[in-house]
Amino acid sequence: MGTTQLESVPEPKYWHLKTVLSDALDSEFAVGEILPNERDLAARFGVARATLRQALEQLELEGRLQRRRGVGTTVAPPRMGVAVGDAGHVWPGAATDSWQAVDGVEAAPPAAVARLLGTGAEESVHTVRRIRRTHGQAVAAELLYVPAASVPGLAAIDAPGGAARARAVLRELQRLQLEGQERSVELGSARADDAKQLDRLPGSPVLVVTTRYSAGGGTAAVAVATYRADTCRLTFDGLLAG
Amino acid sequence: MGTTQLESVPEPKYWHLKTVLSDALDSEFAVGEILPNERDLAARFGVARATLRQALEQLELEGRLQRRRGVGTTVAPPRMGVAVGDAGHVWPGAATDSWQAVDGVEAAPPAAVARLLGTGAEESVHTVRRIRRTHGQAVAAELLYVPAASVPGLAAIDAPGGAARARAVLRELQRLQLEGQERSVELGSARADDAKQLDRLPGSPVLVVTTRYSAGGGTAAVAVATYRADTCRLTFDGLLAG
Repeated sequence: MGTTQLESVPEPKYWHLKTVLSDALDSEFAVGEILPNERDLAARFGVARATLRQALEQLELEGRLQRRRGVGTTVAPPRMGVAVGDAGHVWPGAATDSWQAVDGVEAAPPAAVARLLGTGAEESVHTVRRIRRTHGQAVAAELLYVPAASVPGLAAIDAPGGAARARAVLRELQRLQLEGQERSVELGSARADDAKQLDRLPGSPVLVVTTRYSAGGGTAAVAVATYRADTCRLTFDGLLAG
Repeated sequence: MGTTQLESVPEPKYWHLKTVLSDALDSEFAVGEILPNERDLAARFGVARATLRQALEQLELEGRLQRRRGVGTTVAPPRMGVAVGDAGHVWPGAATDSWQAVDGVEAAPPAAVARLLGTGAEESVHTVRRIRRTHGQAVAAELLYVPAASVPGLAAIDAPGGAARARAVLRELQRLQLEGQERSVELGSARADDAKQLDRLPGSPVLVVTTRYSAGGGTAAVAVATYRADTCRLTFDGLLAG
C-alpha cells in the first residue's frame, strides 16, 4: 500500500510551479513583502510568462498572495478565522456582535431576497447596511432586509435615515422571539458598493452568506453578507453540548 | 429617505453589461442552452470583446453560466443546496451520509493538516478519499485524515488497500465517542486529482470545507472537502431546539 493511487493524476505545468512558488514564499519571503516582477520571476523559474501568471492566480485564489493596485503582488498574511453563526442564535444588532450599522433606507430588495421574504415584486422593505470589522479591517459588508410586517412597532418611530434609522430597525428586531436561522454559503462577486467598502475591485471573489431569520412562524428577515474571500476563512461552531 | 445612499457608487461598464446579460438570460434563454459566440454577443450589446469577457466571467463566478470544454458557454441551472454539518453530528461514514469511500492509503498529510492533528512532520496517517454525489453528479471530493493513534483497533485489521481499507477506517471511527466538530469554509482552487473527480479543470474555484472532529479530548480526525463552487451552495442547519 502506497500513495500512488492518490497521486496518479498528472498535474499541469503551472500547478507544479505553484507548488514550487509556494515553498519559496514559505522560505524566502516575509508577509507583506513585494514579489519581484513577472519577468524576473519567469526567468528565475524558467517558465513562460503565461504559466507564471496562471500559478500566481492560483496562489491568489488560495489566499497566499494579494494583488493591490499601485503596490504590486505581496505575500498575504494567513487568512483570518471569522466566526459565522454565533452559538447564541441572536438577532443582528445584539450587543455582542462585531457589526456596525451604517445606513438604513426603504427599498425594493433583489428578486431572490423578495422570494425568501415572501414580499411582493416591487414592495419596499427596511434595508440596513452593516459593516463588519476585524482587527481594524473591513471583512464583510451586509444588507439586512426586514419587511415592515416584521417590525410593526417601527411605524411609530420617526427616526431620520442613515445609521439612526438602521439602529431603530435593529432595536425593533430584538423584541421578536427568534425561532431559528438557516445559513448558506456560496461563491459570488463583489458588487461595486460592497467592493468599495471592502477595499476591493468590483467583481472580486467573495463568499456570500445568506441568513434567513425565522420568527412568528415565518421569515422575519433575510441578511446577505459578502465576505472578502482573499482574507477570510469562515468558521462555524459545532461543539456538542455536554 | 430614498435608495440613493446605497446606490451612489458608480458601477464599471462590464458590471452594467452583466446586469443586462443577466436579465437576458432570465427572459430569452433556457437552462442548458448554449450562448451565441463572443463576437456576436459583443456586437449585439455594442461593447468591446474585453468588456463582454469580464461580464461573462462575473456571471460564471456567480453560477449563472458554465463554461465547458468542447461545448461552449451554457446557461447554468440554479445552484444546488448541499447540506454541510448534519444536525446529528455524526462521524463520516455513518449510514445516513451521502458520501462514498473510494480509496484508503497511508500517507503523510499536508503540513496544515499535520498541525491540526498534532502529528509529526513526515508521520503517515490513514487517508480516506471520499466522493459526494447529489442527483448523480459528483459535487465534492474529500480527504479524511485519521492518525493511527485515533483508531488503535485498526492495527488488527488486515484489509487490503482501496475502498475496503477506507471502509475499515470509517468503521473504527464509529466506535469512538464524538465530542464535537468545528468547520471552516474558505475559497480555494481544485487540485488536479480533485478536479478530475469533480469534472472540472485543475485550479477551478472550489469551496474548501475543513472539519476537525474531536474525541478523547483531542483532534481525532480532520477532513478537507472541496465542493464545486460553480454548482453548490453550502447550507448550514441552524434551527433552534423547541
